[in-house]
Amino acid sequence: MAPRTKKLINQPATILSDMLEGFAAAYPDIVRLTDTGLIVRAQPKATGKVGLVIGNGSGHEPAMIGLVGQGLFDVNIPGEIFAAPGPGRILEGIKAADRGAGVLVCVSHHAGDLMNAEMALELCGMEGIEAVEMVVLYDDISSAPKGREAERRGTAGLFFTWKMLGAFAETDATLAQCKAMAEKIRDNTRTLSVAITPGTNPVSGAVMFQLPDDEIEVGMGVHGEIGQGRQKLVSADQTIDIMLPPVLEDLPFRAGDEVLVFLNNSGSMTQMELFILYRRVAQRLQEAGIQVYKTYIGPYATTQEMAGFALSLCRVDDELKTLWDAPAIGANVRIVQP
Amino acid sequence: MAPRTKKLINQPATILSDMLEGFAAAYPDIVRLTDTGLIVRAQPKATGKVGLVIGNGSGHEPAMIGLVGQGLFDVNIPGEIFAAPGPGRILEGIKAADRGAGVLVCVSHHAGDLMNAEMALELCGMEGIEAVEMVVLYDDISSAPKGREAERRGTAGLFFTWKMLGAFAETDATLAQCKAMAEKIRDNTRTLSVAITPGTNPVSGAVMFQLPDDEIEVGMGVHGEIGQGRQKLVSADQTIDIMLPPVLEDLPFRAGDEVLVFLNNSGSMTQMELFILYRRVAQRLQEAGIQVYKTYIGPYATTQEMAGFALSLCRVDDELKTLWDAPAIGANVRIVQP
Repeated sequence: MAPRTKKLINQPATILSDMLEGFAAAYPDIVRLTDTGLIVRAQPKATGKVGLVIGNGSGHEPAMIGLVGQGLFDVNIPGEIFAAPGPGRILEGIKAADRGAGVLVCVSHHAGDLMNAEMALELCGMEGIEAVEMVVLYDDISSAPKGREAERRGTAGLFFTWKMLGAFAETDATLAQCKAMAEKIRDNTRTLSVAITPGTNPVSGAVMFQLPDDEIEVGMGVHGEIGQGRQKLVSADQTIDIMLPPVLEDLPFRAGDEVLVFLNNSGSMTQMELFILYRRVAQRLQEAGIQVYKTYIGPYATTQEMAGFALSLCRVDDELKTLWDAPAIGANVRIVQP
Repeated sequence: MAPRTKKLINQPATILSDMLEGFAAAYPDIVRLTDTGLIVRAQPKATGKVGLVIGNGSGHEPAMIGLVGQGLFDVNIPGEIFAAPGPGRILEGIKAADRGAGVLVCVSHHAGDLMNAEMALELCGMEGIEAVEMVVLYDDISSAPKGREAERRGTAGLFFTWKMLGAFAETDATLAQCKAMAEKIRDNTRTLSVAITPGTNPVSGAVMFQLPDDEIEVGMGVHGEIGQGRQKLVSADQTIDIMLPPVLEDLPFRAGDEVLVFLNNSGSMTQMELFILYRRVAQRLQEAGIQVYKTYIGPYATTQEMAGFALSLCRVDDELKTLWDAPAIGANVRIVQP
């Protein structure tokens, strides 16, 4: 169960710049790479729209470069591999996103990301940039107990917020409304992940964690952070039977609720496995009287070639359903209705 | 460099049925699973459209279940893992796709797929179903030399045909026109693949091939078929420098041509690597005076968690560009313009 240390890169020092150049060259209709290494929308709305900005460590693609575009982010500030961008770069991103209606800085809750975003907002204050707000997103039920939600990590379920917040911002909602919407979606989302084989850090070549051949790790974060603990490798159905009940209990999701279901591919899971897993999710939700509105099955936040997945649910009302169904056209994340 | 033998399935005997049930449950707006195990469009056009049908071994998802939908296939006949469906099942698929304007049976050139499709057409003749044609697609330059194109295997580049043929069939083109269009796209497409780490057969658990830690296999087929031979593992740029020239020479693609470029993720390649690889493709094509019209970077035909990719180019004219830009909304393959 050795990891895939063979990777097609040029050299560790140029991974980020090579990737961003290739990415921007591949999708010129959707994104542009600025001289300062930001990924921005190629076709921004002219005025009146709150700018949505996020910074993050790279190595998790499509997050977040793939989520810049219509109905998604205006600006992404890609950091080095697995390292949050610094406050000065976040400030640059805020300026790039500012089209006169304010900027919402979105933060996936990890210590480095939060600290740097807070410092960037202080820099904004020093420069007299006033219409900037920050919202902190979290969803991983394994990283802190119920009642301490704000201590939880941001993981795959944040995709729900980005997608629906992005659609909401396109309606020319105000900055305060956008922040409230992000919090509403966050507060209706819960996620639990499982890892079955590790990935490798593309810079160092180091394996990110060790896991015996017959074990899985439940609740692992997107950088191999420790979760709820290890369990024996079981069948797909049994894996869902382990993961779904704590997710349902945490919100709680109840009979009569409508939900979006997202299975995030951590890297090298096959779609075959993800569909087999979803089958059991659908069965169990039906038994619980919970109705699935729509699904999304695929990669959002990956951890290199780690095998594993996150199970994430978001409770939706009519407002959120409309936002989910609005078109989202990122470079390689596209949601459109048939 | 051991393969990922840990997989989240229930049991080998139910992989196909579990996957199809989960897949259909996940995308009820787009596909329906029939009692006989076919994946069909949930919202077929009423009449006047040539039915597009393909059968294939499973285990390559999203191919081909993910390519059923608007602007793509009408019916997919999923076979067992890595095994073509039999003639009787293909006949069922033809009947399911027949809406009065004829059916085009598409074949990715592999011995089993071709033989079974030919037998299915004989069965059609015996049943008096007349408006059925077959088209055989191939693209892999490593599997037979120039001048013997019809002996080549069908690999990743067939995605170009499915996408544009699907759009063409939506215009209510005739059966003969659809077949000619498929051949036109095929004859403008060339592909070369590389594998760097193997996948495992999900039924047997067997590793599909062996490859030393410092070697890559150029020209490998989607089931681990032997390619042009092994080479030392080199940088991303050097890998493209090995692969692109023979692709360009084979058609040949010339200065002034416009092309679509597709990088197919064989399974566990990171998007990070694919964008780094694409950067070099873009540089080399620019040097050659070949203009990139659009790109597609992501999984189409996977080989479980094999790491590797295919580089595929298709020369396009105005007609093909319009067909590429038309919406394609499969379950998890979506092409829409920003």
